[in-house]
This record gives sequence, C-alpha cells and structure tokens, in this order.
Amino acid sequence: MNPSNPVYKRQADRLQDQMRSVSIETDYVRHPPGSALVRFGDTWVLCTVSVEERVPPFLLGAHKGWVTAEYNMLPGSGTSRVSRVPTGRTKEIERLISRSLRACVDLSRLGTRTFTVDCDVLQADGGTRTAAITGGFVALALALSRYLEKGSILKNPLTKMVAGVSVGLVQGSALLDLNYEEDSQADVDMNVVMSKQGDLVKFIEIQGTAEKQDFDRDQLLALSDLAALAMPSLFACQRQALSSRSIIKNL
Amino acid sequence: MNPSNPVYKRQADRLQDQMRSVSIETDYVRHPPGSALVRFGDTWVLCTVSVEERVPPFLLGAHKGWVTAEYNMLPGSGTSRVSRVPTGRTKEIERLISRSLRACVDLSRLGTRTFTVDCDVLQADGGTRTAAITGGFVALALALSRYLEKGSILKNPLTKMVAGVSVGLVQGSALLDLNYEEDSQADVDMNVVMSKQGDLVKFIEIQGTAEKQDFDRDQLLALSDLAALAMPSLFACQRQALSSRSIIKNL
Amino acid sequence: MNPSNPVYKRQADRLQDQMRSVSIETDYVRHPPGSALVRFGDTWVLCTVSVEERVPPFLLGAHKGWVTAEYNMLPGSGTSRVSRVPTGRTKEIERLISRSLRACVDLSRLGTRTFTVDCDVLQADGGTRTAAITGGFVALALALSRYLEKGSILKNPLTKMVAGVSVGLVQGSALLDLNYEEDSQADVDMNVVMSKQGDLVKFIEIQGTAEKQDFDRDQLLALSDLAALAMPSLFACQRQALSSRSIIKNL
Amino acid sequence: MNPSNPVYKRQADRLQDQMRSVSIETDYVRHPPGSALVRFGDTWVLCTVSVEERVPPFLLGAHKGWVTAEYNMLPGSGTSRVSRVPTGRTKEIERLISRSLRACVDLSRLGTRTFTVDCDVLQADGGTRTAAITGGFVALALALSRYLEKGSILKNPLTKMVAGVSVGLVQGSALLDLNYEEDSQADVDMNVVMSKQGDLVKFIEIQGTAEKQDFDRDQLLALSDLAALAMPSLFACQRQALSSRSIIKNL
Amino acid sequence: MNPSNPVYKRQADRLQDQMRSVSIETDYVRHPPGSALVRFGDTWVLCTVSVEERVPPFLLGAHKGWVTAEYNMLPGSGTSRVSRVPTGRTKEIERLISRSLRACVDLSRLGTRTFTVDCDVLQADGGTRTAAITGGFVALALALSRYLEKGSILKNPLTKMVAGVSVGLVQGSALLDLNYEEDSQADVDMNVVMSKQGDLVKFIEIQGTAEKQDFDRDQLLALSDLAALAMPSLFACQRQALSSRSIIKNL
Amino acid sequence: MNPSNPVYKRQADRLQDQMRSVSIETDYVRHPPGSALVRFGDTWVLCTVSVEERVPPFLLGAHKGWVTAEYNMLPGSGTSRVSRVPTGRTKEIERLISRSLRACVDLSRLGTRTFTVDCDVLQADGGTRTAAITGGFVALALALSRYLEKGSILKNPLTKMVAGVSVGLVQGSALLDLNYEEDSQADVDMNVVMSKQGDLVKFIEIQGTAEKQDFDRDQLLALSDLAALAMPSLFACQRQALSSRSIIKNL
Repeated sequence: MNPSNPVYKRQADRLQDQMRSVSIETDYVRHPPGSALVRFGDTWVLCTVSVEERVPPFLLGAHKGWVTAEYNMLPGSGTSRVSRVPTGRTKEIERLISRSLRACVDLSRLGTRTFTVDCDVLQADGGTRTAAITGGFVALALALSRYLEKGSILKNPLTKMVAGVSVGLVQGSALLDLNYEEDSQADVDMNVVMSKQGDLVKFIEIQGTAEKQDFDRDQLLALSDLAALAMPSLFACQRQALSSRSIIKNL
Repeated sequence: MNPSNPVYKRQADRLQDQMRSVSIETDYVRHPPGSALVRFGDTWVLCTVSVEERVPPFLLGAHKGWVTAEYNMLPGSGTSRVSRVPTGRTKEIERLISRSLRACVDLSRLGTRTFTVDCDVLQADGGTRTAAITGGFVALALALSRYLEKGSILKNPLTKMVAGVSVGLVQGSALLDLNYEEDSQADVDMNVVMSKQGDLVKFIEIQGTAEKQDFDRDQLLALSDLAALAMPSLFACQRQALSSRSIIKNL
Repeated sequence: MNPSNPVYKRQADRLQDQMRSVSIETDYVRHPPGSALVRFGDTWVLCTVSVEERVPPFLLGAHKGWVTAEYNMLPGSGTSRVSRVPTGRTKEIERLISRSLRACVDLSRLGTRTFTVDCDVLQADGGTRTAAITGGFVALALALSRYLEKGSILKNPLTKMVAGVSVGLVQGSALLDLNYEEDSQADVDMNVVMSKQGDLVKFIEIQGTAEKQDFDRDQLLALSDLAALAMPSLFACQRQALSSRSIIKNL
Repeated sequence: MNPSNPVYKRQADRLQDQMRSVSIETDYVRHPPGSALVRFGDTWVLCTVSVEERVPPFLLGAHKGWVTAEYNMLPGSGTSRVSRVPTGRTKEIERLISRSLRACVDLSRLGTRTFTVDCDVLQADGGTRTAAITGGFVALALALSRYLEKGSILKNPLTKMVAGVSVGLVQGSALLDLNYEEDSQADVDMNVVMSKQGDLVKFIEIQGTAEKQDFDRDQLLALSDLAALAMPSLFACQRQALSSRSIIKNL
Repeated sequence: MNPSNPVYKRQADRLQDQMRSVSIETDYVRHPPGSALVRFGDTWVLCTVSVEERVPPFLLGAHKGWVTAEYNMLPGSGTSRVSRVPTGRTKEIERLISRSLRACVDLSRLGTRTFTVDCDVLQADGGTRTAAITGGFVALALALSRYLEKGSILKNPLTKMVAGVSVGLVQGSALLDLNYEEDSQADVDMNVVMSKQGDLVKFIEIQGTAEKQDFDRDQLLALSDLAALAMPSLFACQRQALSSRSIIKNL
Repeated sequence: MNPSNPVYKRQADRLQDQMRSVSIETDYVRHPPGSALVRFGDTWVLCTVSVEERVPPFLLGAHKGWVTAEYNMLPGSGTSRVSRVPTGRTKEIERLISRSLRACVDLSRLGTRTFTVDCDVLQADGGTRTAAITGGFVALALALSRYLEKGSILKNPLTKMVAGVSVGLVQGSALLDLNYEEDSQADVDMNVVMSKQGDLVKFIEIQGTAEKQDFDRDQLLALSDLAALAMPSLFACQRQALSSRSIIKNL
C-alpha cells in the first residue's frame, strides 16, 4: 500500500491492510447437506445449502443445474430492527452472491438440480455480502462434496475457489475489511470478489461506489490491489475449514 | 405419570418425562438490548428483542406499550428447505408466542413503546414454538432490565415468568418435550405455556390437537400434568440464565 | 358445574351452561354440493363446500384426497368494518377449522379431490370459529353424501361427527357459548372441538387462552367439562339438519 | 319493445320484459348502520354500510365526504368455487357500483366521513352488479337516515334514488334482467343504472358489450328503453323497503 | 349534430365534431412482431404485441388461442406522477381494451397462442383507452399479418376492424374526442368502440357515465351518433397505417 | 487501447472504441418539469422527472431533499415480452441509477422535495442502465433548472455532470458501448459511471462482472480506461442537449 497514504486510526490497533479475525465453522446446523457459520469479526453469517431436484423454468431441457443464493438480515442483527420485508438492497446483494457462487461451478455437472445457498446474517458489522460469499463457498463445497460422495453427482463441478472482501477509502486511507463504523464514514466503498484456480487469482466481481467523494484511476487501483492482497488468507481459511475434502484439492 | 402407561423407547434412553438438554445463552448477539439463544436438544432458536418508540395504531392514546413476537424458520433449519414466504402456520405460532409473552408484562409500565421479540429458528427438531417462548422470555427480561437500569422504564413491568413445553401421546405413551421424530408419529400433540408468580404455577395457553387419534378427559389431564411437572426445571433454567438480574427476583 | 361458582348474570336470563339458540339451515345456497347457514344466537356463518378434482402438491401420488377450510368475516359482520385483507387471526382460525374437519374424514376414500369448506361470517357475536366447525361439518356431510349418491365416492368417508363450542371464565363464572360481550370480558377463553363416534365423545382440539388471568388445573377441567356437556345437543342439532341422510346413520 | 322481436322462451314462462321476483330485506344484519339483502330471483347480494370518520388522502382539506363500494362473490356463490383473490372483473364492478352510488349523494353534506358500501354476493344467478347497486342504495339510505336522525349529518345528502338492471340480446330477443343461463348465451349484454329525481328518470351509467355479435343503433335503443321501462318497479321496491324513512320522501 | 346545441369554445378553434390530429406510426419499436405509436393530439400510446406459444389455463384443450391487453400509464405521462402500482382504473381499462380487441379476432384460427397487446401511455391528454384500442388494433393486425406470412397461422383470423373514440357533454355541448381539460369538465363522458365489416359499422362497447349530470335518451343518442360519425376517419387512418397489408383487405 | 488486442468485428464496421450514435431529445413529453428521450443506437430510454413536496421518512427533519430513480422495461422493449412484475435485476439497476444521480446533487439545496427520475426503456439493445443515467442526468438538470428559474430552489444544486457507459471483453477484444448481441457473448461486462467537475473526470460507480471468464488487473484497467476515454463525448452530448441552460455552465 502507498506509504504516503494518511493513517486512519482503526479500532484495536488494526492495520490498514489487516483483516478482522476470520473463522469458518462447518456443518453448523445438522439438516442441510452443507452449512457454515462464517465470522469476519462481529459480522456473522449462517450459510446453508439446500438442494431441489428441479431447475428454474428457463433451464428446462438444458441438461444442467443451477446455483442461486438468498440473503437476509435477521431482525436483531443490526443496530436497529431490520424488517423482514426484503428491500431493493436485499435483491442487489442476492444477485451479487448468486453470480459469484455460480462462477465457480460447472453447471453441466450438477444434474437437473438447484443448489440454493441461503445466507442469513445473525450479526452485522460491515461486509456482510462479502462474508456471505466467502462462507457460502464453503457451504456449497461441502454440499457438492457430499453429492459426489454418494454418487448423485459424478464429476467434481467445482472449478475454482471464490471469496470476497470489502475495501474502502476512509479519511484518505485505503482500508481493508471495513467494519460498520468505518463503512459509514467511507468516501468510497468497494466490494471485490475473486477466484483462485491454482496460481491464478482473478476478479469475478468488482463493485466500487463513491459514497462521499468520487475516485480516480489511482484510487481504483489502490483499492483493488488492497483487496487482491487479502485474498490468499481468505482462500487459506476456506481451505482449512474444508481440510479433509478432496473436492478442492486441485483448485 | 400413569404407571400403566405403555413404554415408548426414546432416543438415547431418554425417559418419558425427561426434557432434552436445555440451555439458554444470553446476549448471543451484541446489538439488541436483549437476546438469547435457546436450545432444547437440537432445536435452536435465536430470540432477539427490538424496541421502537411507538405503539400500534389501536393503542394510540392508551398510555401503554405493546409486546409482540415474530417467528421464522431459517431456510436451512429443517429437513428440507423452508421457504422464506410466511405460511398460515407461521402466523398461528406468532400469535401464540405474542399472547404468551404479553401475559407476563404490565403493559402500562412500558411507556409508549413496542417490544418486538423475534424468534428465528436456526435448527428445528420439534418444539420450536415452546422453545421460542422459553427463550423469548429471557431475551425480553434482559431488554426490560436494561430499560429499567437506564431509567427509560420506571417500574418493573414483569409480573410473572413464562415458559412453554410440548407434550404428546406416542404409541400410547405420554411423552415430554417431543423431538421431530416423535412429533411426527404423535397421536395427540399439545403445547403448554405456563406462568410462575412466586409459588403459583398456572396455565397461560394450552393447545391440544388430535393428530391421529382423538383424546379423552384422562389423556387431557395426563398430558397437561406431564407438562406442568416439567415447568420448574424450565423456570430454573431461565433464572440461571438471568442470574444477576434483579428484574426477576420476586417472580 | 361447580355450585360454588359465582353467578354471572347473562342476557335474557340465560343459564351459565345454556347454549344460545342454535339452528342449521341446509342447502342455503343452491350451487354448492353442500351448504349450511349455522346460527349460534346472533352469530351466523354461511358454510359452503366446493370440490376440485385435484389435490395439493404435497399429496401428489398419495392416492388420497384433502379437506381444507377457509374462514372470512364479511366487512359488515362486526361492530366496526372488518377489512377484506386477511390477518394472522384469520389464518389461525382457518387452521383450526381445517384440522377439525379433516379429523372426521377418511381421506383415502375421497379420491384425488379437494373438499374446501368456506366459512363466511355474515354476522359475528362471539364463537364464530366453533360455529363454523359445527356448521361446516353439516355442509361437508351433505357434499360427501351427494358424491356417494352419484357414485363418485364409493365408500362413506365420514368416520365421526364433529362440532365445537366456546367456553370461558367471566367474573369467576364458567360460561358456555359466550357472546361477544361476554367474550370481551373473559379472563379465560377456550375453544373446544369434539367428535362423536357412536357413544364415544372425545376431544379433537382444545385451545385455552388466559386473556386476563391465568388458569389452574381445576379451571381447565371445569371449562372442558362444561364444553363436553354441551356437545350432545350440538350433535343432535346436526343430526336433525341432516335427518334424511344415511351418511351419518352409524356415527 | 319491438313486436317483431323473435320470442326467446324463458324459464317459468317469464315475459321478455319481466323482472324476476325482486325483494329487499332491510337491516338484515344488526351491527352496521344500514344493511339490505337484495334478491333478484336467485341472485342474492348482502349490502352493508360502514362509516369511518376520515376521508381518502385526495380529499384532505376538501371539507367533504366520500362514498365508495366494494364487491365480492363468496366462494360458494357460483357454479364453481370463486377464489377469494380479487380479479380485474372485481375491480371493474367495484368502480361501477361506487360511481353509481356516489351519483346520488351530495358529498359536501357528509362531513369528513367515508361511507363504504360492501356488496357481498351470497348467491349468483346473473345481474349481480345491478342488484348490488339497487340494494346498495337502500343500505346507504338507511345509514344516512340514521346519521341524520342522530344529528351527525345535518342536511339530507341524498339527491336522487338510484337503481340498476341488466338487459341483453339473446337469440335475437331483447330480454330484461337476465339470469346466468340467459347471460351466458347473450349476444349483447348491457348494464343500465338510472336515477330518479321526482318525475325525472335519467341514465347514470350505461355499459353495453357485444359478447357474440356487435349491435346497431336500433338495438342500443331497444335495450336501453327496455331497461328504462323496468326502473319504476325497482324504485317502487326500494321505496317500499324504506317506507317509513323521510330521507327519500322528496326523491 | 344538433344545431341548437350550445357552442363550447374549444382550443385552437376545433369544431365540436372534430377529431384531434390522429396519427399511427407502425413498427415504432423493432423487437415485437407488431407495434404502433398512436397519437390523438397530445395523447400518445405505444402499443406492442407479444406472442406466447401457450394459452391461459381456462382454454387448455379448447383448441383455440387468446387475445388480451395490458394498459399502463408511464409515471411521467400525466400532470402529476403516476405511480407504477396498478389501480382499479387500470384493470377496468384493460378489460375494455381486451374485450374490444378480442371481438375482431376468430380465436380458433390463432393456434394455441396468446397475443398480448401492451398499451403504454407515454403522454396523456384524455381519451387514452380509446386511442389504445385504435392503435392496438393496428399493432395486432401487423403481428397477425406476420404470423400469416410465415405460415404459423394458416387462415386470416381478423374478422373486423375495430377503433374507439370518446365523446362527452361539456357545458351542454356534445364534443368529440375530448382532451384532458374538456374531460375534466364533462357532465357526461362516453367511450365508444365500434367495428367495421365491409359497409357494416356497429357497436362493440358503449360505456357512458354521468360525471356531473345524469343524461336522457336524447343525449345518449346524440353522443353515440357523434361517435359513430367519427369512425370512418379512424378506420381510414388505420387502413393507411396498414396500407400494404392484405390482412385487412376485405374488412 | 492495447494494439495487441484481438479485433472483434462489430456491426456496421464500428470501431472497438466507438460509441453507437447517441442522441438526447429534451422535453420529449410535455407534463413533467424535465424529460429526455436518450438513444444509444437502438437502446431508447424515456427519462422523466417528477417532483413531490415531501421526503422519505428517514429524512424527516433533516432539512434536505432527495433524488431517487425508478427503472422499467416496457413489455415490448425486448426480444421476448418483459413481464410488468419487477425483478431483482430491476431493483439492482434502480439502485445504481439512484446513487449515480444523487452523486451530482447537493441535497441540502433541494428543499424538502423528492425528485424522482423515471427511466422507462422503450427499446432495449444493451446498455440500458448507463443510457438511463446519461439521459436521466439531462432530465434532472432540466427540472432543477426550472425550479431555479421559478425561484422554488434558490441555489444551483447541481455540483457535477454525470454520465455512464458500458464496456466489455468479447472474444478477447475490449469493446465500448456493447449492444445486446455483443453483451450476450461478453466474457466480462462492466458498467462505468463518471462525473465531470470542470476538468476533473472521476469514477462514481464501477461494476465489473465476469460473465464467462474472470479478469485480471490489466483487463480491469483496459476496460475502465476505455470507458473513461468515451466520457468527454457523452458530456458534450449532454451539454448540447442542455445548451441554453445556465445550470450546467460551470460544471
């Protein structure tokens, strides 16, 4: 990161390019074929995967499956009560998660099945959508792994690992993994989703928004680079959570 | 319980009048003024309390507050995916929880505020509604306690403790605290909500349903007595979770 | 009933264990295969049965039929206008009526048909849900009888008679069949649904709610006994309405 | 009517220009300030009036009241079950009834009140919307009369009487007051709403629709004349139902 | 028109029986098989036709197709913002357009297809529903023509031409084709839809409404005659827009 | 652009960095205070601005105004019929347009007003959301200009110009302003919104999505640079459309 970057003082002496404590607890609940409780600091998202033996109407006859996601904040997850009625923001986030998780799956290997990754935010402190992608990948990999094991799926459909993180400009500082307090002061806010395929780490989604100030080419680069630097630790965290699973061995 | 009762063999040698392991973890999430994660075996319900400084239209000018509840099963909580669209069952349960929690509060002491107790089922294994009531009471007591402490509420509005449990007839046996497997075979299913005010333990709600066989006066009594016998342990569990709180001292 | 029971003075010198005037007018409207206008005093419910030659998705392939109910208060039925938008209360009542009517039918004898019992309250004066069950049974029996007569159904699917009544504690008195004025003052309110199979009269549903005061074991018994005592007159009333029908001969 | 008109043989020897038996039973239900059960043969509509002490947003500050109507067919009113979900047809009819009833009221005399006329079809056999208008007028007049009597309304807001009837061309015959069987074969179907102010009888609404064959100027005249001829008997019927009421004395 | 008719002074010296400038631009947008932008003065409606290879449930097995219409005002089309939420008025108009366009088509020649005519009002200045019918006919004829050309439809399903116009009584004058200003002052408002089959011009729909004053037989005739006189110019305008198409040659 | 970039052959010999023909027709419809029909080739979006003298609840007491947008595709705008029911995509796009247009306005100068920019797609051929932003800015500037002229707004609230364009990678080529055919083959798709404040041109939003292939840092730069190069021509086009307006003079 740019050494001339002004220094924003973060909570608990966190460095500008430092993630919050990240953990992924697999099989958190017992019914779904895959589930994970992901924590980025005080942001907690419960990701569960359900499988239905049918595909949406637009895929009828296409001989492939589908991956989709739903996102929801529990009423008690925020600083004030979050209504159960979905908003436009909910839909925007669901589409981001869905596209991101679909990007790492060869749909033609799923059979005519729909894998729905439900991401329910138990506690929110910034970065819920990228935490959901990071944990959702683990839950999805678990479910796919079990479908492979029992022979319902014949070939490994996972083509990449996928994770996400948020970055932002706060008082001139480029910060990694913003919590709610930082996020609410950010001049620029960016969600970055990346994939890993062997040594290749590439962008799947990049969504940058000028909240208080517009940004230039250098700032775009500084932020996307900052996110890219954090990805190895997220992939490592996912790999550890899935340690005994062969499904991600070659990714 | 009737000694001539035939003996249904329960999982893990559980006795017919034995609760599953019950635990209540308070302040599970950090934003709400009160929250509790209640576990009745593998049934886990996250109860969170939110407070709004207004009352429903029908209470305008009535100089009192309101307590209401919402109930929801997370999509991954069941054996197959639970749709996010609320059903008639959802509404029926919300009304039961709302009435039960309202029964233990002196609404005239709340100020013109609405306390909403959100009960989100993370994992379901039978008895979610009574677990929600039991945990919801703790979350509500915590929130009320904090409103008392900071002086927003002047007099203790809690008049009783409230808890609930399910009972049922399975293959002729009266069972306490049915899990999903037992519940799905039950001839009769009964949800019982009771209050404690000093030494007085009384009924708040009793809802008995003949699922496969109708029931007679003796069975009604056997079931309601079985539930009543279990209440002291539930109240003790709530009391322990709230141990340091004076709000329940005299209840 | 307990002679030490304090005496609440009812309208028109009605006794504590006295039903209001009950009448059931069959084939009130001409299109449906079965209909009945049931009156419990000033509570009037029009029950009509419609039949569709299909079953809900969850019964596909199950080789049986379904019985369900819908409940609705007409806008002019209450003391103030009742909105046409269904509430949680509507759903709660629909589920009670549905379960109660389903309890008296052998679904495997219906064919792949759905019998929907619509209960529309023309005028409300307390006890609408139990009146709906009592009248709904008659409308359903009529419809089934006609399906038997024309050979669309081969064996009598009715296994029991079903009726319901409300009871409650008002100013310490246990009252039968509460009207609106009594109901709004009740400390405890209980809806009881019972079945008759020959000499056997048993409970199908019992829903007791502490409205203003919690209740104990003795009060639970007093109320359920009071309801049970009233059932023979309700079954007689249904039998008279259906007098010429063989479908209920052996029930 | 045109003597060269071919003769369609109606049920029960009804003449082409003959109404079915019309009756209007006032105060059919006891809670609303005005109600009427209107019957045009086997078409039965329960009309009830509710009053709210507020007006729709677009009338705020206009110092006048509002009259509106809702229309609904009960599920068991038709030959097959009528879903409770309103359709476009429902809305179309509600607007016709609303406009028709509004036409006979001086809104500036209502105070800031909304009179809602709910028209619930108990049994349908053709002509429900015009029966609803005819009965709705009576229910509305009753309610207004009572608001006048108790002094909540100071001057008589009723300026006219209003009634409606359907006419149609069936197999070349112009028929009055079609029942369902006739209506379903009609080439042209016309709903006519007229007002009476002393000796003046005029059109409020005329809605003619070519169902199977388009119609010409002569047929338009024949049908509207046939409707006009029937109006005196409908106004007489309304007047009789309201006999003791001074509110319609001068209309 | 009646010479004794009082003279209302119209904008830009328009005569009482004079249409606004009418134009119909075909194939306004490129994707649909038929589209037309119709202008009646400052009332502009974009009509587009979409075809689906299926029919509504009630036509399953009937071996015929369906024609339906949807109507919508764009938010910026009116003098104040028009909400995107459809109202009762929307439904009423959709039904009028649908019936009118269905009247000119032999459904048995469509195959099992649904032709949906979407009428989106870009700018509103009175008479949007009749302009929509007039333009919708052209868009539908274009689409049918192309289905005939490519052989998907074998025989010409168009049996008539259809157009519509509004008329009204304003300050005693019978006016043709009212703009918004005139419409908002009208005592009587009438929408007239007519068909042309060779020399025969007949009514399909006539909907007259007393807005401020009721109307008598003479006024009914004056208005319907005024509309009828305008039809030839509308049919000519449609014919010109469709000039090269053989589909309307014999109509 | 990179000369080693492979060359994708575009329709009509369009260069890789060439916009389609762009036009902006102001005051397209006459009622709204500002409107514009923007065309990017065959993508046509009608942008209209409506003003309400109130703000959303969350701004009550904040002494500032609001700018929001709605987006809609007309049913006939696409290659198959677009349902009128909004989808998640609709919401996602509405949020992008809303944020982008809000970014160029000093809300504290609007008064307690809401400016709603409705973007209705008449014809879609790729890039509808960025065309909507480009045209929406012009419509909004017109409306603000008129509110300034009539004195309802006292100081110019416009702080920047805003426009948007899509870019993408197709068969290895970085293309500017993709049409539908190109968009549906794109490996990467990126929407870029930029602002102009004097000589400063900066990013407001950047949303890049890997559709078929993930992208690296170089490709991110190539695409964002390609978009940035196109902005001057879009700002010039907006400036020309608004030529006589002083509101944008200093931007």
